[in-house]
Amino acid sequence: MTDVAIFGAGRIGKIHAGNLVRQPGVRLRCVVDPDAAAARVLAAQHGAEVGTVEGVFGDAAIRAVVIASSTDTHADLIERAAHAKKAIFCEKPVDLAYERAQRCARTVKDANVPCLIGFQRRYDPTFSALHARIVAGEIGEPEMLVVTSRDPGLPPVEYLKRSGGIFKDMLIHDFDVFRWILDDDAATVYATGSCLVDPAVAGVGDVDCTAVTIRTKRGRLAQINTIRRAAYGYDQRFEVIGAKGMLQAGNHRPTEVVASSGQAVSADLPEHFFLERYKTAYALEMAHFFDAIASGKPVRTSIDDGVKALALAEAATLSWREKRIVEM
Amino acid sequence: MTDVAIFGAGRIGKIHAGNLVRQPGVRLRCVVDPDAAAARVLAAQHGAEVGTVEGVFGDAAIRAVVIASSTDTHADLIERAAHAKKAIFCEKPVDLAYERAQRCARTVKDANVPCLIGFQRRYDPTFSALHARIVAGEIGEPEMLVVTSRDPGLPPVEYLKRSGGIFKDMLIHDFDVFRWILDDDAATVYATGSCLVDPAVAGVGDVDCTAVTIRTKRGRLAQINTIRRAAYGYDQRFEVIGAKGMLQAGNHRPTEVVASSGQAVSADLPEHFFLERYKTAYALEMAHFFDAIASGKPVRTSIDDGVKALALAEAATLSWREKRIVEM
Amino acid sequence: MTDVAIFGAGRIGKIHAGNLVRQPGVRLRCVVDPDAAAARVLAAQHGAEVGTVEGVFGDAAIRAVVIASSTDTHADLIERAAHAKKAIFCEKPVDLAYERAQRCARTVKDANVPCLIGFQRRYDPTFSALHARIVAGEIGEPEMLVVTSRDPGLPPVEYLKRSGGIFKDMLIHDFDVFRWILDDDAATVYATGSCLVDPAVAGVGDVDCTAVTIRTKRGRLAQINTIRRAAYGYDQRFEVIGAKGMLQAGNHRPTEVVASSGQAVSADLPEHFFLERYKTAYALEMAHFFDAIASGKPVRTSIDDGVKALALAEAATLSWREKRIVEM
Amino acid sequence: MTDVAIFGAGRIGKIHAGNLVRQPGVRLRCVVDPDAAAARVLAAQHGAEVGTVEGVFGDAAIRAVVIASSTDTHADLIERAAHAKKAIFCEKPVDLAYERAQRCARTVKDANVPCLIGFQRRYDPTFSALHARIVAGEIGEPEMLVVTSRDPGLPPVEYLKRSGGIFKDMLIHDFDVFRWILDDDAATVYATGSCLVDPAVAGVGDVDCTAVTIRTKRGRLAQINTIRRAAYGYDQRFEVIGAKGMLQAGNHRPTEVVASSGQAVSADLPEHFFLERYKTAYALEMAHFFDAIASGKPVRTSIDDGVKALALAEAATLSWREKRIVEM
Repeated sequence: MTDVAIFGAGRIGKIHAGNLVRQPGVRLRCVVDPDAAAARVLAAQHGAEVGTVEGVFGDAAIRAVVIASSTDTHADLIERAAHAKKAIFCEKPVDLAYERAQRCARTVKDANVPCLIGFQRRYDPTFSALHARIVAGEIGEPEMLVVTSRDPGLPPVEYLKRSGGIFKDMLIHDFDVFRWILDDDAATVYATGSCLVDPAVAGVGDVDCTAVTIRTKRGRLAQINTIRRAAYGYDQRFEVIGAKGMLQAGNHRPTEVVASSGQAVSADLPEHFFLERYKTAYALEMAHFFDAIASGKPVRTSIDDGVKALALAEAATLSWREKRIVEM
Repeated sequence: MTDVAIFGAGRIGKIHAGNLVRQPGVRLRCVVDPDAAAARVLAAQHGAEVGTVEGVFGDAAIRAVVIASSTDTHADLIERAAHAKKAIFCEKPVDLAYERAQRCARTVKDANVPCLIGFQRRYDPTFSALHARIVAGEIGEPEMLVVTSRDPGLPPVEYLKRSGGIFKDMLIHDFDVFRWILDDDAATVYATGSCLVDPAVAGVGDVDCTAVTIRTKRGRLAQINTIRRAAYGYDQRFEVIGAKGMLQAGNHRPTEVVASSGQAVSADLPEHFFLERYKTAYALEMAHFFDAIASGKPVRTSIDDGVKALALAEAATLSWREKRIVEM
Repeated sequence: MTDVAIFGAGRIGKIHAGNLVRQPGVRLRCVVDPDAAAARVLAAQHGAEVGTVEGVFGDAAIRAVVIASSTDTHADLIERAAHAKKAIFCEKPVDLAYERAQRCARTVKDANVPCLIGFQRRYDPTFSALHARIVAGEIGEPEMLVVTSRDPGLPPVEYLKRSGGIFKDMLIHDFDVFRWILDDDAATVYATGSCLVDPAVAGVGDVDCTAVTIRTKRGRLAQINTIRRAAYGYDQRFEVIGAKGMLQAGNHRPTEVVASSGQAVSADLPEHFFLERYKTAYALEMAHFFDAIASGKPVRTSIDDGVKALALAEAATLSWREKRIVEM
Repeated sequence: MTDVAIFGAGRIGKIHAGNLVRQPGVRLRCVVDPDAAAARVLAAQHGAEVGTVEGVFGDAAIRAVVIASSTDTHADLIERAAHAKKAIFCEKPVDLAYERAQRCARTVKDANVPCLIGFQRRYDPTFSALHARIVAGEIGEPEMLVVTSRDPGLPPVEYLKRSGGIFKDMLIHDFDVFRWILDDDAATVYATGSCLVDPAVAGVGDVDCTAVTIRTKRGRLAQINTIRRAAYGYDQRFEVIGAKGMLQAGNHRPTEVVASSGQAVSADLPEHFFLERYKTAYALEMAHFFDAIASGKPVRTSIDDGVKALALAEAATLSWREKRIVEM
């Protein structure tokens, strides 16, 4: 039985806890959250205890931690877990500061513990099937990538203030998709953005829609378009073209009902937001984490991936702020 | 230059006239219609004259006729044209009475003139591509056929009174599709129908929706569902399954715009009715007619096809009226 | 804690057991199967015991049973469970003989226990969303229904021998969909079928493809087309038209990848077979069963539904065998 | 009767001639082409004469000219036509040099003659329906535009040498779409490109795939991705998002056949190249030209549109060459 502690009993913590307890041979031992009530509820739901940071790291029986707490706690918790030789599952980002994230990565490396960063999109059935087909050579070498990544609505401005900005908060997933799909390093990054959804976003020094272009060392091209508010829901598509053809990853619909009225032929909107869209991905990600622990094989989304996506987010932020092309 | 006369200056006559004058080496010589004003307008539009039935059949220079007049005139005009050794393009049906249609077919055969019956669906790019793929063996032998055939709205009751009933008026096209796609003869026909759209239809002894099943001599199965009123427009689909797979013919949309709103992801309704849906089919049908005349090759939709579709329509009418399975 | 026994540790038994143990407050107490090894494996997987039929019905602590054993055991087990006052979840069909199924239903009624028959399609998210939209009036009164129901491949002939024939084995689900969607009683049933897939099917007195037409008391029309072998997988679609439009239920795909090669633009095949296609439906069905027990509300797919679908299957079998239209 | 001359009897000249002769009241008087044989064939096909440049401009009876000759002749012919007070239909681009194009535009303005530049996409039924829906406010103000524009294959290198580069030759249409759809002026242009298809393209100082980002004065964002070789054909899509939703323009397929095999569910590839894809657009464009002449109303795609698209192409070329963001 692998005993596990989880930090964070919020929205994503609940998802991870629910998936965690379904893994054979895995037990949720304790839940840690500054919000004691939230911790209690989640713990009770899964027959776990409420714990403390100190308690978790002092308990050698806890072999793995899931870090789903607020972003500013990630780096510390990763480092403490690494020192305590626990396997680590941490939500993105590693940290908002690139230097700090890099230090974390070194600590993890030195400790030689598994550390999975939560780029759940790589576990999504559609995205991972597409990736496997590229690897199998179906379209030849990937040449161009177009990523569409749109949220259904703006988060609260309070959240945005502490988010690190749209490139680190939202596009970090897209930067990881870019690295994963094109399998190449960025040579230059160009980013521009606007505040078209809500002027309050500009008020906190951020933008709510962006257009990013990455040119890789081998000359491949990627474009990412994002917006914080799509009236029709969570839009998560990408397409990649190679010499032999194109592969597209489309949105998922809740149902396959098609209605023909006097006005139009209509299908469902996409799954509303990430909890719905990536429900299966989160489950597969957690299963992969414990498989990797059991098998001793490397995790598919490592802390290095976390650091490299962050480097792209920093470059994009710089490009946007300074209105220039950034060389990596 | 091939000189041609057209009978009928109504809706479908105009379509045929427009396609006719685009054929290289073909000239519309005269237009005949009891409605003198309609004849004048159509003739003027294409630089033709207004003619009479007698005039057309007495003029040896007119080598072909297009019969787009009312159904009750078809058989007579076909026979007169056959006797006058003119090539014949006639709208379906040959006649509402099977015996009369058969006699017509014999006359045409004896005269040895080309006679194309207007089953325009066989010339539709989607339908003919599907047929060609069956012939090429893509799905193996066709085993089952499902035809969906729905009109956007009821015609006037006055029209229905003289239409010969839904099986001869509307399903005759579907019976031809059945023969063409399954390439087999019917062994039994079962038809049922209801009056669900408008009680006035029952008032003239007809139904407005039907369900037909045909079993072929080789045991293949076909189902046809029709209704006179589809709120979303003209619905013209069929699908055929064989040992190696399925081929489906879908509706055509006016545009490829897809809209994602807060409610749904929506595409255009299908092309509204037959004039729009089969616009290309009508053009290709007319081109085929003159190609056949020029090459001396048989027409793809012969008077025999017209007679055989009518036999199925008679059988379906009988099955529906007498509530029994009809053996062919 | 609700203690539950399951009869049957085969393919569908495993699915139900897996869903059962995920219900809050529900415990799988024992597994009963003539195949002792299968029972042991399934019991061990869920921390249950291997039991016997006698043991289950003698144990008052077991409050519910899931019957996923072979068809010929269903009626007996339902009746014993009813007498023992246990809640019943039973796979379709109740029995292959209509009379026997009716007797069962009376026994269940007299015992006043919940009895859910496993018409899982009603719990499928796509199908149930479509049904809800009909009920909400989106298309007006449903007028015509077209059901496409195709299996990916023939079962073993040994299975077919004991299956009761294609109408009771395969179409019983489609008959239930008909009743559920049109919400009307059949007036006449016409069925024809052929043996086009494998002559061995004819050898056991069955057919492998069918075409069924049902006319309801209110004159609504339904057509069902089925085949035992669709090269492209499990094809489970239906569409219903009303005065205000059409609703279609389409297949589900494993992923939303679309590939554009030099040959075609291609999407995934449908989910391969019922275990994949109705995975969510099976989970929701089980949750509904325990919700119904807890709330005391009637189950959505009752033993009456089972009996009525069987009546249609009997009528269709008769229509096919005797080549006549059967009045209900 | 409006007499018209056409310059250029090549691929696009033939299309325009074919559409021109279908306009009521319009007559093709003469065809001019340095390739005398080509001119003869096209003239004969439409009952026209072979003419000369001098002849055309000296003949006051010729009221309109269609310029479909090589790019390097456009500016001269436009100016001569303007001086001769003839209505002008000219293929894009006006000229490869921005200054020259501007001078042309001034000449046309001074002459006050209609001058339509062949941005045929604006006449495409899908694109123009989408535009009309934006104008009608369906998605609110357009905020972001993503354009996918891919050719099926590389043109000959000889052609590329004289093409003015990919931004002027291929993307000029996309720049026009950008202007038309977002209805805003560019503030900055960023372009990058690579030579991934064929090194011979780099050999003539060009690239074969590009990624362009335009930021408008009002802060709207547009991304354009292009490649000279898409294995699956001519890919012409764009999508635009506003506060109320998204509108997407998809590719057109030759037929609506869908095939389900043992491998995939497959639809047709897009129409192969521009002659097929924009067949209807070319026809509507020509009809609009003569409507504009008849009504005296301005043409929808004016020489100013030609000049402004060229300005964007120049900016993109500069951005790509000098690896910098270009301010307009």
